[in-house]
Amino acid sequence: MDRFAPMPAPPYYAVIFANQASSTPDGYGDMAAKMAELARAQPGFIGLESSRDAEGFAITVSYWQDEAAIRAWRENVSHLAAQKVGKARWYEHYRLRVARVERAYEGPEGR
Amino acid sequence: MDRFAPMPAPPYYAVIFANQASSTPDGYGDMAAKMAELARAQPGFIGLESSRDAEGFAITVSYWQDEAAIRAWRENVSHLAAQKVGKARWYEHYRLRVARVERAYEGPEGR
Repeated sequence: MDRFAPMPAPPYYAVIFANQASSTPDGYGDMAAKMAELARAQPGFIGLESSRDAEGFAITVSYWQDEAAIRAWRENVSHLAAQKVGKARWYEHYRLRVARVERAYEGPEGR
Repeated sequence: MDRFAPMPAPPYYAVIFANQASSTPDGYGDMAAKMAELARAQPGFIGLESSRDAEGFAITVSYWQDEAAIRAWRENVSHLAAQKVGKARWYEHYRLRVARVERAYEGPEGR
């Protein structure tokens, strides 16, 4: 269950980050772990869900209480530095979408 | 680039489906491929991004023009049958969130 983000009452926000890793993502794993740890310490952070497949295609969704929390995280100094390296070195391509969560469900019932 | 969903002008909708596969997800791959194909044929479908890691934790995000399109897909007869099998057999746990995409970016610049 610890790979799933909590389910507070909507509305809240999701940052959906889809990315294709470059063929030589040196240092990526360490930085991703460090960024996840930093995000957890940010005000307004709700949780994170992330999956990366064998081809290096990944989706990471982070959840935030409000837009201000997303803005503060985007401007976090360590995160800014990681974004810069990511753009220069780690990501072949990425698409990022900010969305307002309106409803949520979980299942299967009883599990 | 074909693993990324298109980026129409917001607003549009995202269905964020995070799931942990059961240890014996027989028939899952075939059904997932069939469902993706069916979704593509639905009115209002924009695109799909999906990643499943070695531990069977997956995130699939489907994008839709509006709530009516999501509702129609949820009630698609073949999809309803797949949902039933998924709940009974494939998913150890899942969390599904419906969110309104408000803005989107891509990068890195020039790639």
